[in-house]
Amino acid sequence: MKIAEYIFKQLKAHGVQHSFGIPGDFILPLYAAQEASGIKCIVMTHEPSAGYAADVYARLKGLGLATVTYGAGALNMVNAVALAYAEESPVLVLTGAPEVKFRNPNMLFHHRVKTFETQHNVYREVTASSAVINDESTAIHDIDRVIETTRALSRPGYIEVPRDMVNQKVSVPPRSPYTPPKRSKAELDEAMAEIIGRLRHAKKPVVYAGVELHRLRLVDKLRTLVERLNLPVTTSLMGKTVLPEHHPNFIGNYMGRVGPRAVRDYVESSDCVLVLGQFWSDLDTGLFTARPNVANLIQATTQEVVISHHRYTEINVADVLDALLKARALKHSRFQVHPIAKEPPRAESQGHKLTMLGIIDELNQFLSRDHIVVSDVGDCLFASVELKADMFVGSGYYASMGQGVPGAIGAQCADPSHRPVVLVGDGGFQMNGVELSVARRYGLNPIVIIIDNGTFATLKFIDQDRDYFDVPRWDYAGVAHALGGKGRRVITRSEFKAALKAADDSADFFVIDAVIDKNDSSPALKRLGHEIGLKFKKR
Amino acid sequence: MKIAEYIFKQLKAHGVQHSFGIPGDFILPLYAAQEASGIKCIVMTHEPSAGYAADVYARLKGLGLATVTYGAGALNMVNAVALAYAEESPVLVLTGAPEVKFRNPNMLFHHRVKTFETQHNVYREVTASSAVINDESTAIHDIDRVIETTRALSRPGYIEVPRDMVNQKVSVPPRSPYTPPKRSKAELDEAMAEIIGRLRHAKKPVVYAGVELHRLRLVDKLRTLVERLNLPVTTSLMGKTVLPEHHPNFIGNYMGRVGPRAVRDYVESSDCVLVLGQFWSDLDTGLFTARPNVANLIQATTQEVVISHHRYTEINVADVLDALLKARALKHSRFQVHPIAKEPPRAESQGHKLTMLGIIDELNQFLSRDHIVVSDVGDCLFASVELKADMFVGSGYYASMGQGVPGAIGAQCADPSHRPVVLVGDGGFQMNGVELSVARRYGLNPIVIIIDNGTFATLKFIDQDRDYFDVPRWDYAGVAHALGGKGRRVITRSEFKAALKAADDSADFFVIDAVIDKNDSSPALKRLGHEIGLKFKKR
Repeated sequence: MKIAEYIFKQLKAHGVQHSFGIPGDFILPLYAAQEASGIKCIVMTHEPSAGYAADVYARLKGLGLATVTYGAGALNMVNAVALAYAEESPVLVLTGAPEVKFRNPNMLFHHRVKTFETQHNVYREVTASSAVINDESTAIHDIDRVIETTRALSRPGYIEVPRDMVNQKVSVPPRSPYTPPKRSKAELDEAMAEIIGRLRHAKKPVVYAGVELHRLRLVDKLRTLVERLNLPVTTSLMGKTVLPEHHPNFIGNYMGRVGPRAVRDYVESSDCVLVLGQFWSDLDTGLFTARPNVANLIQATTQEVVISHHRYTEINVADVLDALLKARALKHSRFQVHPIAKEPPRAESQGHKLTMLGIIDELNQFLSRDHIVVSDVGDCLFASVELKADMFVGSGYYASMGQGVPGAIGAQCADPSHRPVVLVGDGGFQMNGVELSVARRYGLNPIVIIIDNGTFATLKFIDQDRDYFDVPRWDYAGVAHALGGKGRRVITRSEFKAALKAADDSADFFVIDAVIDKNDSSPALKRLGHEIGLKFKKR
Repeated sequence: MKIAEYIFKQLKAHGVQHSFGIPGDFILPLYAAQEASGIKCIVMTHEPSAGYAADVYARLKGLGLATVTYGAGALNMVNAVALAYAEESPVLVLTGAPEVKFRNPNMLFHHRVKTFETQHNVYREVTASSAVINDESTAIHDIDRVIETTRALSRPGYIEVPRDMVNQKVSVPPRSPYTPPKRSKAELDEAMAEIIGRLRHAKKPVVYAGVELHRLRLVDKLRTLVERLNLPVTTSLMGKTVLPEHHPNFIGNYMGRVGPRAVRDYVESSDCVLVLGQFWSDLDTGLFTARPNVANLIQATTQEVVISHHRYTEINVADVLDALLKARALKHSRFQVHPIAKEPPRAESQGHKLTMLGIIDELNQFLSRDHIVVSDVGDCLFASVELKADMFVGSGYYASMGQGVPGAIGAQCADPSHRPVVLVGDGGFQMNGVELSVARRYGLNPIVIIIDNGTFATLKFIDQDRDYFDVPRWDYAGVAHALGGKGRRVITRSEFKAALKAADDSADFFVIDAVIDKNDSSPALKRLGHEIGLKFKKR
C-alpha cells in the first residue's frame, strides 16, 4: 500500500468524510490521493478558515482533517490549531513538504523559513503529537501513533509528508487492536465509595457538566445518568449543550457572577456539586467568580478525580461516569430538580429598535431541534448564556475571533441534518465572513446573524472608548449578494423576526445584518463588564 | 520613563509612524501608550493582513511594526512574519500578554495554548531576535537588542510585554552610539584587488542585483556605481526595481529559462557577473535554470563574498559596494551596455478579449513614476517579469498568497507619494481583499487589478486540471461597492484601458475585475510550466 493511501484509509475508518484546505504545489500528490480515497476536500478561501472548519467538524465527528500546503499554507493556520489544542478538539493537520532527497541546507525552496524543520517545530507547540514521514520503515507506526493520540487525547496532531514519500510503498503490519491504558481498580473503588456516599447523603446535589464530556463522546452517558437519578444539570459556557438545553433537568449556564443569578445561587447553595469534564478558565468561570465551596465538590476530568481537597490521579471522568451508571447503591436514588427563579422581566428600552435582548428573545422563539448554533467570540458569545439551544458550538476558552462562518461550514459538513445559525460580531465577520462563498459552492446554507454595532463591544468594558475600537461599517447584505447568497439589513425587532422567517424559507445562505446601538450589549457582558471594573479598572 | 514609552520612543526614532494590528484585551495598555506616542495604529480586519502590511511598510521604511494581542492575535500572524523572515524584511512584532504576576501554571487565561511560553516559542522559529519583557532591570537592554538586531539583520524581531510591565518605570542608561561590527581590512583589500582586476579586464561585465540591496538601503549606491561605470544591470524577480526599470542601464529581469531569452543570453555570455545581494532561490532562478558559469561570478551578499569558487567570509556586499565607489583604479573605466534583442511581436490571439498579455501591455503604458506596483503571488507575479516598473514589491521567494491588498495599505502608509497598483489573482483577493475597507477608513486609494480567471492557474502547470483548482466566481465590483469604494468588471482590452483611466481619475480605491480566459497565462508562467514539465511531470 502507498503511504498516502494508508493515511486516508485510516482516516475514513475513523469517520472522516471531508477535509478542509487549499491546494498548493507541495501538497498536490496528497490531494490526488485524497480525491482517490473518496474524502471530499472543501476548498476554503484562506487557511485560518480551514483550521476553524476542521475544528468544528472534529468537535462534532470525533476527528477533523485539515490539508494544507507547506509554509505559506500550514503556517497560516497555527492559530486555529492552537484553538483546537486549547479547547481539546481532535484536528489532524496533514501537510505536504519538499522532497526528502532535496533537503539540502543550501536549497532555497519557496515557502521555506529558517530550515526545513521550522514548520514542524512551530507545530510541536500547538499539537499533542506529530511526525514527519521521512522513513518507510517507521511510516505506519508514526501515522498510527499520531492518529490514535489525536483521538485519545482529543487534541491536534500533525503529519508532514514530503512530496517524494506520498507514493512510497510500505507493507502494513497486522494491527493489534487498540487497548486503552489500564486503570487502577483499587483507586476507582475507593473513589466511588466516597462519591456514592456523598451523593446518597446529598440534600441538593447538582451536576456541573463541561466540554470534555462532549470531546470524550460521553454525552449520552451523562444524559442516561441524570435522567435515571433525576439530577439537575448546569453547564459552563464551554460545556453549553452537553445536555440539550430544552431538557427538563437543565437549569441554565453557570458562570459565577457573570451568568444568571438563579443558577449561581443554585450551584453555590448545593451540598454536592458533581463537576464532570470541566476546566476552570477565566471566561468560563466569569473571571473566576464561579467559586462554589471546594469542600462540596467532586471534580472529574480527563486527567484526574478530585474530591474536596484530595486527588485520585489514575482515574478519570469516563471511569467515574461508567461506575455511577453501574452503581447498585444508587439504584433507587431519585433526586429533585428544584425550580429555578424566573428571570426578572426585561425592559426593552429603545422602542421598536432592535437590541441584543431582542435578538436573544427572538432567537429563543426561532431556534428548533433542526438548528445548531455556532457562535463567534465577543458579545454574541456572552449573549449565548441567555440562549436556549440544543446544539451549540463556540470558542469559550481560547476565544479566537473569526471562527463563526468557517465553523458553520465544518458543522454542516459534519452534520447535514442541522442547519447552522451563526452568531457573529461585525469584527468577527470581517475576518472570515467571505467564506460564505465556499458555503455556496458546496451547497451549504447557514443563517448568519451579524451583530452590527460598529465596535469591538467587549473592549469598551476594559478600557475607555477609543477610536481604534471602531469597526468600519460594511454593506453586509451587499457582500452577501456579491458572494451569491441572500442578505438583509434590519434595524427593528419586527424586521429581525421577519428576516429570520425569510432565512428559514431560503435554500441559500442568508445573512441578517442586525443593526443595534453602539452602546447596547447583552446582560452577561454587562455583568462581565462590572466584574472587570471591580478587578482591573481600579488598578 | 515607562517601558512602553521607551519602546515607542525608540521606534519613532527609527522612522516608524504607523503600526498595523487589531486591539485585544491583553494589548490594550500598549495601545494606549502607542496612541500617546503619536504612532498611528491602522486597525486591519484580520491579523495575517497586519503582518503583510507591516512587512511592506518595513521594506519601504527600514522598519515596520505590527501590534497584536496575545494568542489569538499573534498566533494568527505567524505566516506573515515567516514571510518577512524568509525575505529579509525588518518587521517588529509587539504583543501584549498576561501579567507576570498571574503566570501560574494552573491559571487558565483565555488565549493560552500549552503554557504561557507557547507563543514565544513559536515566534522564535520565525524571528531573528526576541524578548519577553518580564524584568525591569534588563528591559532596556532587551528592547534595544531586539530593535537593533531587527534593523541590522533586516529580519523580524519579537517583543512581548505582559500587561503588568507596560507601565513599569525604568531608568534609561545613557546610550553608547551603535557601532557596527568591525570588518577585516586585509580580507577586503585582497578581495577588492581581485574584483577590480576582474572588472577592469572584463569584456562584457553585467551587474545582477538582488533584493538585499533594497533591504540594506544600498540602492542609491548601486545607482551611483552603475551610472559612473556605465554598467548594465539585470535584477531577479525578488530584486525587481532595485534599479528603476526605466533606467537606461537596466536590461530586464533575469530568471534563467523562465525569464526573457535576451536577458538570459546576455548574463550567461558575460565574462564577469557582479552578483550583488542576491540569493538563489527556486522561483528567483526559474527553477534553478539561472546558471551562469560560476567561474565568471563575483557574488556579494549580507553574509560573505564569493569569487569563482573561493570565499571571503568576514566581508559583505555593503563593504564591496563602498570599496567599488572609492576605487581609484576604476576612475576612468567606462563599460558598455550592449543592446538587448527586442521581444518578438506578441500575438493577441483572442480578438478583443482581454488576455494576460493585454493586461501587461496596457499596464506598461499606464504605469508612471507616481505608482508603486504591489504584486500578490501566482501568475500576476510571473507576469511582472514583463512589466516595466520603477517601484515594485512582491513576495518572490516565500510566495505567500494574499499579501497584495494588505501590502498596498502598508505601502501607501509608508510612502503616500506613490499610489499603489495591486496585481492579485482571484484566489489571493479572496483571502484578504476585504482589507480595502481599511484602506477606505484611512483615506488610502489603491488601484486593485484582479486577474479573474476562476482558477489557481499556476497549479495547472504542475498537475492535471482538478475540480479543486477552481476558484469560485465573485461579483468583485459588488464587493468593492459594499466596502465603500469603486469597482468595475471588464472583459475586453479597451474596457480594461478605460477602467485604468477611471481608476486614475478616482480618489477612492478602485477595483478592476479583469476577466480572462481560464486557460490563459503569462509568457513567464508558460515557460515555468515548460520547465516544471521537464523536471517534475515525467517522474
